[in-house]
Amino acid sequence: MKSVINLDLGPVSYCIGEHALESAKKHITKYPKRYLLIDNNIERYCLPVFKEKLPNVSITGIIKIPSGEEHKNIEQCINIWKELTQQEADRDSVIINLGGGVISDIGGFIAATYKRGIAFINIPTTLLGQIDAAIGGKTGIDFMDFKNQVGLFIDPMAVIIDPLFLNTLDDVYWQSGFAELLKYGLIMDNDLWEMVDKRNYSTIKDDWNKLIMRAAKDKIDIVRYDTNEKGIRKILNFGHTIGHAIETHYLKKDKPITHGEAVAAGMICESWLSSQLAELECNPQGEICETIDRNFKRLDICEDDIPELLLLMKQDKKVREGKFKFSLLRRLGKAIHDVEVDDDLVAQSLRFYIYKKTCE
Amino acid sequence: MKSVINLDLGPVSYCIGEHALESAKKHITKYPKRYLLIDNNIERYCLPVFKEKLPNVSITGIIKIPSGEEHKNIEQCINIWKELTQQEADRDSVIINLGGGVISDIGGFIAATYKRGIAFINIPTTLLGQIDAAIGGKTGIDFMDFKNQVGLFIDPMAVIIDPLFLNTLDDVYWQSGFAELLKYGLIMDNDLWEMVDKRNYSTIKDDWNKLIMRAAKDKIDIVRYDTNEKGIRKILNFGHTIGHAIETHYLKKDKPITHGEAVAAGMICESWLSSQLAELECNPQGEICETIDRNFKRLDICEDDIPELLLLMKQDKKVREGKFKFSLLRRLGKAIHDVEVDDDLVAQSLRFYIYKKTCE
Repeated sequence: MKSVINLDLGPVSYCIGEHALESAKKHITKYPKRYLLIDNNIERYCLPVFKEKLPNVSITGIIKIPSGEEHKNIEQCINIWKELTQQEADRDSVIINLGGGVISDIGGFIAATYKRGIAFINIPTTLLGQIDAAIGGKTGIDFMDFKNQVGLFIDPMAVIIDPLFLNTLDDVYWQSGFAELLKYGLIMDNDLWEMVDKRNYSTIKDDWNKLIMRAAKDKIDIVRYDTNEKGIRKILNFGHTIGHAIETHYLKKDKPITHGEAVAAGMICESWLSSQLAELECNPQGEICETIDRNFKRLDICEDDIPELLLLMKQDKKVREGKFKFSLLRRLGKAIHDVEVDDDLVAQSLRFYIYKKTCE
Repeated sequence: MKSVINLDLGPVSYCIGEHALESAKKHITKYPKRYLLIDNNIERYCLPVFKEKLPNVSITGIIKIPSGEEHKNIEQCINIWKELTQQEADRDSVIINLGGGVISDIGGFIAATYKRGIAFINIPTTLLGQIDAAIGGKTGIDFMDFKNQVGLFIDPMAVIIDPLFLNTLDDVYWQSGFAELLKYGLIMDNDLWEMVDKRNYSTIKDDWNKLIMRAAKDKIDIVRYDTNEKGIRKILNFGHTIGHAIETHYLKKDKPITHGEAVAAGMICESWLSSQLAELECNPQGEICETIDRNFKRLDICEDDIPELLLLMKQDKKVREGKFKFSLLRRLGKAIHDVEVDDDLVAQSLRFYIYKKTCE
């Protein structure tokens, strides 16, 4: 496989693979004023790499926010809009989002709304950012306990995906990204599933470059045809309707879990729903649970949590007229979207998870 | 002239003229959940009219903000996002912006960003709203002393323009709207200019329905081809580069003036710039000043204010790489855009205004 892929797809240019970062120069220098958005961790671990690999790219200003999902909020937006105003950023400026999903989510939203819109470039530095958050133009912030309650769809000018940044990544981030990787295999890419099935995220580090390229291309293939999530893009929500509620539930209890842990749990529930409503047979369904359980400990959700989880799901952006619409698996590598599921069956899927039942 | 015009132009439906409000029903009832955004004044003067003319249109929730441009800010956005969340607005909801420019500006921004975007309908109730703010998808809020510093371009589903709402309008609003009306005449519609030239806004009330229809159609003609203000739409900024700076200047001094007063002053300065840089001859230039002076008293700007006004202009969204780009008049009814003007000449145009000089 080639070590770098360049894709110029309409409004967005993608560069994926080893040495992709060097190619960022030509995208950044199109803009006379360049603002780098980072957080505390990025400043320490990734900014030196950025500067070393792009020594001749001058930056007009660096804007820093605190690290962590809990800072993906309106207060930080206000701070960033202020910084840009004070530094006299104009409509010909570009924001370079160097960081994980929090940075590209909030930075994209800021770029879309500052002076009615300026350009932005995503340079994801986490596994989750590289295979998911930085691709596809979903931007936004959390608001009133709801993830991405305020935001919009808008494409970056370019996405630069370089595995170089992953060298310093903690184990927990590899695990978290692995859940999304499994998802791409399950919903659309059976070959990818074969590459990861029955394996453990910590033992396949040598394959990661290949896996990231594959997963990133899978995501690009979906979003380029449906930026605004009117149709096919919805299959990316597999594991996320229940997963998001679980993630918020733990955040509210001040016991945050990773996005990957939440999605892993969500995929177990939703693969069970798939077996009930979308033709997925018991055999692959058991296999899915086995591979997820091999990589993620079950969370301590209990029966009493179910009503609150259902309530949180009702506030999901995918809910229309109070009805749940799920993306479910028809078979390995093939998902369908907009399957209506009633509250009772969703509760049952959570029980399937809690009591480690088997598919019937 | 027909008393109502229906235009279905791609994404936006326009209904303009007497009884237009009745036709709002078919647009509103497409959406199962309907939220009305209003302010204190609208509640008193326009909400009863809305309810009377649309008795069978049920509203899910009414969200109210305080009246006035000073409330077009991020704090009010936070309140409205909260209200929508608490009232469980979903992606199939619609926001109906019933009010002046502040309501459609902030309401459009909210709709574009709530859950990554829901539909909205503009029902402008002021003259300025009907011929300008509600048409063309510019949304946003003021931020750090800068007008519309945070916002985006997004089209409403429908714009309903009914002169019925103007019955209770104070004289000052007629005057303010008149400045924009003059602008359409000057930049693109010589016949409209002929209809208003040498006249006084307070003596032509009988012609207003006709004038509003004409001006609204002029604006629609421009924005439909250039929503994102990349080209021709920029001519709408005539009078506004200097006008916005003047408006902000008075706001900062706690002596707010109307948008129309600011634009009237801006048009005097910018018509002088047109005579220097864009072929506009002295004769129509004098005529323009005369008609504006007939309707607007000159403001008490003085020589000492010029440096601050230039500074405010530098923060204008139209400024690129520190250079002023003006939309100027080539002749009556014809404007050009992106004319570079240096600081010194802008200062001279302000002196032309201050000392009531004549064109040379």
